[in-house]
Amino acid sequence: MDVAAVVERVPAGDRRALARVLTWVEDGSPRRLREVVGRLHPLSGRARLVGITGSPGVGKSTLTNALVRHWRAAGRTVGVLAVDPSSPFTGGALLGDRVRMQEHVLDPGVFVRSLASRGHLGGLSVATPQALLVLDAAGFDVVVVETVGVGQAEVEVAALADTTVVAVAPGMGDAIQAAKAGILEVADVFCINKADREGADRTARELRDMQALAHGDWLPPIQRTVASTGEGVAALAEAVDGHRAWLTGSGRLAQRRTARALSHVREIALEALRAGLGDLGEGALLDALAQRVAARELDPYAAADQVLVTFGRQPLRPSDRPTSDRAGEG
Amino acid sequence: MDVAAVVERVPAGDRRALARVLTWVEDGSPRRLREVVGRLHPLSGRARLVGITGSPGVGKSTLTNALVRHWRAAGRTVGVLAVDPSSPFTGGALLGDRVRMQEHVLDPGVFVRSLASRGHLGGLSVATPQALLVLDAAGFDVVVVETVGVGQAEVEVAALADTTVVAVAPGMGDAIQAAKAGILEVADVFCINKADREGADRTARELRDMQALAHGDWLPPIQRTVASTGEGVAALAEAVDGHRAWLTGSGRLAQRRTARALSHVREIALEALRAGLGDLGEGALLDALAQRVAARELDPYAAADQVLVTFGRQPLRPSDRPTSDRAGEG
Repeated sequence: MDVAAVVERVPAGDRRALARVLTWVEDGSPRRLREVVGRLHPLSGRARLVGITGSPGVGKSTLTNALVRHWRAAGRTVGVLAVDPSSPFTGGALLGDRVRMQEHVLDPGVFVRSLASRGHLGGLSVATPQALLVLDAAGFDVVVVETVGVGQAEVEVAALADTTVVAVAPGMGDAIQAAKAGILEVADVFCINKADREGADRTARELRDMQALAHGDWLPPIQRTVASTGEGVAALAEAVDGHRAWLTGSGRLAQRRTARALSHVREIALEALRAGLGDLGEGALLDALAQRVAARELDPYAAADQVLVTFGRQPLRPSDRPTSDRAGEG
Repeated sequence: MDVAAVVERVPAGDRRALARVLTWVEDGSPRRLREVVGRLHPLSGRARLVGITGSPGVGKSTLTNALVRHWRAAGRTVGVLAVDPSSPFTGGALLGDRVRMQEHVLDPGVFVRSLASRGHLGGLSVATPQALLVLDAAGFDVVVVETVGVGQAEVEVAALADTTVVAVAPGMGDAIQAAKAGILEVADVFCINKADREGADRTARELRDMQALAHGDWLPPIQRTVASTGEGVAALAEAVDGHRAWLTGSGRLAQRRTARALSHVREIALEALRAGLGDLGEGALLDALAQRVAARELDPYAAADQVLVTFGRQPLRPSDRPTSDRAGEG
């Protein structure tokens, strides 16, 4: 498999190459990831990254589709990354992609991909920034990352975007509560979807109360949409652009992207350290310590001390060192 | 604050001490955690750990309450840890605890606690095993950890239990899909709650299809409940006991607990390494690298290499080393 040849076709707009590279990112082989990211990173940084998050049932996918339609009508190309472990799309990513693609299947200006990166510890946090980087380097004007705003990892992923839209729906008190519990910090724009339903005014009031709790220089605007009819979607897209203009004008875009880069670098380094821990004594050290902890002979902190002492004494083995990963690439 | 004196009152059944220690666990100060875990770990390992997980709307909390009522009637004491970022309980943990406690508020055999440990990277994964350990050492016969089965971290937390109950409800196709997408691996017992609703038979059929995909020696039984009336709850509790008996008889309980100890030790070591990374060059190294990555002068892997090389050269500073944490404790 000539990784370089496939990766090179991505910025040229080759969809099959893009799909294959995203599968590599999802599989998470460190060597391939390193090569993919090394080649595509210099070409990234031009797309507008938009996060869309919200509880199941608020109509996130319909909203994403409506925004894609709007952006396409305005001549912008769009890549969509759906990261949603609760979604029917995930776990059956291919079927999901097809369902989602239906409307845009013949449009070369749209690319939709579900990321089913559950199961690995750190899987979501490591794979998603890299998948976004790939879509960015593929040249899309807008790259959307859609996540369910329920779990901790999912909220963090939403924060990977330049602008994060938090979607809620009337009558879902839970959505507001969830927002209170964790989403407020990441919301740049609030969207009340299904705004033709009873309770939209109350939801708007609740969101305004939440706005009052927000700190910082940006007050997240509240937009009402009925994504299924397209109502309000243009105004929502304008609010997203407005936030982006504020980010650029205030110098916050650079700050936000540096913070994101920092978190990305740290996660890659931590993954290498995590792999290194697992390899200590061919894995036997952790096993032996775990047995003593389970038998209550040793407490978990004392065991972790022994791991760290061994780790500090023993240099990372060549196979764990990202610096040597490339040597193994064919 | 004399940590030792407070911690010592936990196994004696002092509720205020227990609540205070759980707050320390939630706050995550490494020194206090180390002392709490060091003192309570030898006393833990006796409780039955039961995980209850499922999408929002399946009636998890009602189910937990019904199980608690059943266990209390059988003379067992119960500690409940609710880890649910989508729940109205979290983010308002005190109110949540009071709402949940209502039925059992005068019963010294029940203790309910919401864990609002969002926001930290690794927060859920590190705090939850330690909170479970504290409840276990406090002497409860059964310790329940209730999580929303949507996010990745939440599914992982469910896997911390000896026996994990995955709850679904009829007519929530999403629940089944979510289960397919990630929960199958952690389900030891399936519960169809709200089984008096239309569609329960279909849900049961779908779950049986999923059972066929399960591998391993244990076939997760499917129990129907109407938690609000208590219907089926005794049978569900029996299924939980049945799984536990199988775990013990087959030697899997020891395996499972060793695997859990391994993951706990590894997470503690990783937290220390993570803190160490953040401290490199007083934090300046990561900042400088992040700026170069954001400017596309350096790719994230090359930056991570530099972090790891510096990290390998520079021993963990004393303040980062868990071994020396205790020295700072008053």
